[in-house]
Amino acid sequence: MSEQRETPADTSEVTSEKLVELAKRRGYFFQSSGAYGGVGGFYTFGPQGAALKGNVEDAWRDRFAVAEGNMEIDAPTIMPEPVFEASGHLDGFDDMLVECPECGESHRADHVVEDNTEYEDAESLPIPEVEEVIAEYELVCPDCGAGLAGQAVEAFNLMFETNIGPGDSQPGYLRPETAQGIFVEFPRLKEYARNQLPFGVTQIGRAYRNEISPRRSIIRTREFTQAELEYFIDPEEDEPDLEAVEDVEMTLYPASEQNAEDGEELETTIGEAVEEGIIASPWVAYFLGVAKPWYDAVGVDMDRFRFRQHLSGERAHYAADCWDAESEIDGNWIEMAGFAYRSDYDLSKHAEHSGDRFTIFKQYDEPKTVERATVDPDMSYLGPEFGGDAQAVVQELEDLAARDRSAFGGDAVEITLEGETHELPVEKTGFSVEEQTEAGEHIVPHVVEPSFGVDRLVYTVLHHAYREDEVDGEERTYLALDPEVAPTFVGVFPLQSEAELEAEAQEIASELREAGLAVTYDDSGNIGRRYRRQDEVGTPFCVTVDYESLDDRAVTVRERDSTDQKRLPIADLPETLAALRGGDVEFDDLEE
Amino acid sequence: MSEQRETPADTSEVTSEKLVELAKRRGYFFQSSGAYGGVGGFYTFGPQGAALKGNVEDAWRDRFAVAEGNMEIDAPTIMPEPVFEASGHLDGFDDMLVECPECGESHRADHVVEDNTEYEDAESLPIPEVEEVIAEYELVCPDCGAGLAGQAVEAFNLMFETNIGPGDSQPGYLRPETAQGIFVEFPRLKEYARNQLPFGVTQIGRAYRNEISPRRSIIRTREFTQAELEYFIDPEEDEPDLEAVEDVEMTLYPASEQNAEDGEELETTIGEAVEEGIIASPWVAYFLGVAKPWYDAVGVDMDRFRFRQHLSGERAHYAADCWDAESEIDGNWIEMAGFAYRSDYDLSKHAEHSGDRFTIFKQYDEPKTVERATVDPDMSYLGPEFGGDAQAVVQELEDLAARDRSAFGGDAVEITLEGETHELPVEKTGFSVEEQTEAGEHIVPHVVEPSFGVDRLVYTVLHHAYREDEVDGEERTYLALDPEVAPTFVGVFPLQSEAELEAEAQEIASELREAGLAVTYDDSGNIGRRYRRQDEVGTPFCVTVDYESLDDRAVTVRERDSTDQKRLPIADLPETLAALRGGDVEFDDLEE
Repeated sequence: MSEQRETPADTSEVTSEKLVELAKRRGYFFQSSGAYGGVGGFYTFGPQGAALKGNVEDAWRDRFAVAEGNMEIDAPTIMPEPVFEASGHLDGFDDMLVECPECGESHRADHVVEDNTEYEDAESLPIPEVEEVIAEYELVCPDCGAGLAGQAVEAFNLMFETNIGPGDSQPGYLRPETAQGIFVEFPRLKEYARNQLPFGVTQIGRAYRNEISPRRSIIRTREFTQAELEYFIDPEEDEPDLEAVEDVEMTLYPASEQNAEDGEELETTIGEAVEEGIIASPWVAYFLGVAKPWYDAVGVDMDRFRFRQHLSGERAHYAADCWDAESEIDGNWIEMAGFAYRSDYDLSKHAEHSGDRFTIFKQYDEPKTVERATVDPDMSYLGPEFGGDAQAVVQELEDLAARDRSAFGGDAVEITLEGETHELPVEKTGFSVEEQTEAGEHIVPHVVEPSFGVDRLVYTVLHHAYREDEVDGEERTYLALDPEVAPTFVGVFPLQSEAELEAEAQEIASELREAGLAVTYDDSGNIGRRYRRQDEVGTPFCVTVDYESLDDRAVTVRERDSTDQKRLPIADLPETLAALRGGDVEFDDLEE
Repeated sequence: MSEQRETPADTSEVTSEKLVELAKRRGYFFQSSGAYGGVGGFYTFGPQGAALKGNVEDAWRDRFAVAEGNMEIDAPTIMPEPVFEASGHLDGFDDMLVECPECGESHRADHVVEDNTEYEDAESLPIPEVEEVIAEYELVCPDCGAGLAGQAVEAFNLMFETNIGPGDSQPGYLRPETAQGIFVEFPRLKEYARNQLPFGVTQIGRAYRNEISPRRSIIRTREFTQAELEYFIDPEEDEPDLEAVEDVEMTLYPASEQNAEDGEELETTIGEAVEEGIIASPWVAYFLGVAKPWYDAVGVDMDRFRFRQHLSGERAHYAADCWDAESEIDGNWIEMAGFAYRSDYDLSKHAEHSGDRFTIFKQYDEPKTVERATVDPDMSYLGPEFGGDAQAVVQELEDLAARDRSAFGGDAVEITLEGETHELPVEKTGFSVEEQTEAGEHIVPHVVEPSFGVDRLVYTVLHHAYREDEVDGEERTYLALDPEVAPTFVGVFPLQSEAELEAEAQEIASELREAGLAVTYDDSGNIGRRYRRQDEVGTPFCVTVDYESLDDRAVTVRERDSTDQKRLPIADLPETLAALRGGDVEFDDLEE
C-alpha cells in the first residue's frame, strides 16, 4: 500500500494554465455560464473553491474583526446615486477606453500603451497624452491589428448602473467597494461604538467593477469579494499598539527604492521601518504587522510576498500613505490588499453632500473657556444700503469676525464683496466678543483602511500550493494547502468495497466530523486513485481502513505532502488529527 | 445585586414597530443610506444583525449542505441575458404596475385591488381584468386619492438590469434567485458528483427583485439573501429516506382545507401526510421533515409556524407540488421558504436554449438489446421529386419510422407535408429495423427545491423572541434568542471600574473565547444598565466579577430569561457555559 515518492520536481515552471485547468476539473473555480459561451470576468466557485473561499473569509473575520474587537456589518450591494456623487466614484472612477475602428472591440487604452511602449504607468497619463502616444507609436488593435491612431480615447465609468423602482428616475449603482456601505452609515455606527474612538467596522461582501478587459482568471474579474476594515481614529490622540507587531519581519519595497536606479526590496521589521520613517503612518504599519503573519497562516508563500508602497502618482490625493500587499504569480507581482491612511476624506465628503453629522464629539479633559467674536448687524441699515446683497454682507462680516477681530478695532470696518471694497461703521455691525464654555468639540475622525481582495488571495493560495512530483513512477500533482484553509482536512476510505470495511470507515468519518473536522468519505475506484484525487484537491491527510483494522483497531494514516504512512490506533484518531490540524504535533513525530 | 422579576406581560400586543425600533437602536438592522434619506427596500445589518444572520446561515449550511452531504457553490450575482431567456424570468417575472395620473406614484395594481375589494389573489388575474376591477370599484391612489380608473396597468419586470462591458450590447441582470447559478452549471456540477444521481447543490447568496413597493422592513426588500438547495434526482429510481423524518409532527394547511368553507390546519406527522396523500411528493415531504426541527432549533416559535400548500393558481405550471413554510407575524402569515417539486423544467429549458447537455447517463443494470427502426432515404430520388422540401421529407420519414413502423409495411408509405399528403415507394426510403445494444440512456434529472429566505427568517426569529416583562419595578425588553443563533452567548462584566476586577473579568472573557464562545466584555455604566443592554440584544447569560470573586474564585452567572442568578466557580465556567450552550444542562439544575 505504501508509495514511492521522488524528490519534488522543480516547480518554477508551474504555470497558471495548469492551475486553471485543475481548478476547473476539481471544482475550485471556472468561468460562469459556460453553457451559454461564458461571459468575461464572471467566475463560479465550485464545491472546493467555495469551501476554500469560506475558510479564508472565516480566518479574516477571526483576525481582523473578532481578535481586533471590531464590528462586522452587512450592507446592500446596490446603493443610490448620491452616495457615489459624494465618494467621487461617479466622476473619477474611470478607465480609458479605445474602440477599434475595424472590429469594434473595446480595449483599455492604457494597457495597449503599456504593452507596446516603454510607458509603465499609462493609467496616470491624461487622456490627450494617451491619444498622442497611440498616434506617435502607431499602435494597433490587439485583436485585429487595425490602426488605432486618431481614435478617441474615452473615460469609461467602471460602475455597473441600474434603476431602482419603475422608470429611470432613481439610478442605483453596484458598489465598487464595500467601504462605502460603512462610511455612509457612520452616523449610526458611531452610536453602536458608544461615540468612542477608536473603533473599527468590517465587511466581507461582493463588489463590482465593469472592467473593459477582464484578465487572468479570477485575478481581475467584474464581480469579486472584498474583506475591508475601516478603522476610525482621532488623529491627535489615538495610537496603535505597535509593540504587539514591532518584531514582525517583512519585505518592503518603498517608493524611494522603486524610483532608484538600482533600488531593491528591504528586509526589515515593523519597528525598524517605523523608526526609520520608511512607513510614514504608524497605523498603516500596525496593520501591515497584523496582516503579514495572517497571510503566512493562510498559506501565502512568504518568499513570494512583499509590501510595496504606492508611488506618489498612484496614490489618491487624500491618502497620506498607501502600501499594497503583493504576491508573486508566474513572475508577476499582483496586488492582494491595500493599506491606506485615508485621512478625513471619506467622512468629510459624505458630511458635505448629505448634511448629516459624520463627526464624533470629543470631550475635553476639562471644559474650556474660549472667546468668540460675533456680529449682529443692524439690518435696518444694511437693507437700504446693500439691497439684495445684504445677506452676503452679513456672511462676510461673520467670516471676518471669526478670522480677524482686529478689523473691528476702529470706527469703520472694510469688507470685500465680489471684488469691490465697502466700508461700514463698526457700530452698525453689532460686533462683540463673548466668553463661552465648551465641553468638547466635534471632530471628523480619520480613517485607516486595510482592504483585502478575497478572490486574488484564493488564487495566490492555490498557486503557491501547487506542486508536482513523482509517486510510484507516475507524475503527481498536489496542492500543499494549509490545514486552516483546505476544503477538506481528512479523507476516509475503506480499502475495498466491502460492507464491513465500509461500515467501519463510515463510523470513523462521522466520529471525525463530530470532532469538528472537515471530512470526505470515498469508496470509489482503487486506493491509489483515491489518494490522487485528495492530493489534487489538497486534503492534508487520508485514513484507510483495511481488513486488519477490524482486528487490531488501527488504520493507515497518510500524509499528503510526503506520502508517508503510519499505522495509528482508531481510538486516538480524533485527538491525533485535531492535534495535527492545530499544528501541535508533526506527522513525523507520531509514534506508530 | 439580584433582580425582582414580574410574570411576563401579555406579549400579544408586541408590534413590529417596537421590534424595528429596537433593531435600529441595538444594531440589528436599519434602512440603508439614511444620511441621504434612505432608499426603499434596502437594509443594512448592523453588528448584531450581521452576527445573527451569519449564525442562521451557518446553521442552514450545517443542516442542508454538510449533514445531507450536498455540495455548496458560490456563483456570481450578475448573469447574462440568455440565462433568463431560458429560465423564463425575462418574459414572465412581472408585477402589475399602475401609475397615479395625479401624483405620479407607482403602485402594485394587485395590491390596490386586494386592499380595497373582496379579491384575495389579484396577482393571478389577467391584466385587462385588473383594469376592469379598478374601474368598476372606482379605486383610487393610496397616496393622493386620485382616481385610477382608466389608467393602464402594465407588466413590470422585477429584474434589475445593467450592461456588461462598454456599450449596451451585452445586457446583464442581477439574479432574482440563486437557483439559476446552479441550474446553468449543471453540465459541470454533475462531473463533480461523478455523474451519479441523486446529488444536491446548495448556495447561500444575494438575490434581487426590483419591487414596485417594498414593504414591511426586511420582509419584502429589493436585495435579500437566499439559501437554496437544488436536489437532482432520477424520478424513476431515487427515493428519499422518509423513515428518518416520518415521526416529525407538523401543522399542515393543505390546498383542500384552504378552499373548504370551514377548512382548518391539520396536526399530523410526515409519515401520515404521505400515506394519506396530503403531501403528494415524498421528496417534498422529506425536506419538510428536515426543515421543521431545523426551524425549531434556530428559534422559530412552533405555535406560530405551519406549512401551507400552494393553491393550484399560485403554483408554476411545471411544479407538481409546492408547500411554503410560513410564520405568524402580528396576525399575518408570511412566507419564509418554499419547497417545490420542479420536475425537469429547469434543466430542460437550459438544454433547449443552450444546446449543452443537461442530462445524466443512466446505466442499465444489464445492457439492453432494442430494435430501432431507421430510414436512409435515396436522395437521388427525393431531390428531384421534392426539391427544397427534400430535407423536410427526410425528417418526416424519420419521425414516422420512430412512431409507427407499420406504415412502412406495404409498397408505399404516406407522409404529410404542410397539410398535403404525399406517397413514396418504401424502397426509396431505405427503411430497416436493426437491433442495437444500449448500455443505458441519457435522462434529464428532476429537481426538488427547498428555497429559504434568510432575511425573513431573521425577522421571524427576532419577532418570536421579542419579550417584555418587569424587573425591579421597571419595564424590561429582551430577546429570548436561542443560543445557537444569538450574536453573543455571554457578557462578562467587572462589577465596578476597578483595575483588579477589570483584569479578572478580561481574563475570564478571553478564556471563554478560547472555549469557542461568543463573548462581550462591558465595563461601562452601572451593572443594571449592562444587564438591560445584553437583554435587549438577546445575550443568554451574563457573568459578573465582584470583590468577593478575588477571594472565593467564584462569579455571579445570570440567566437572561428568568433573571435568576447563581454563584459558580470560575474554574468550571468554560465547561458549564459550553454545556448550557449545547443544551446538555439547564440553568435551573446547576448547583451553586
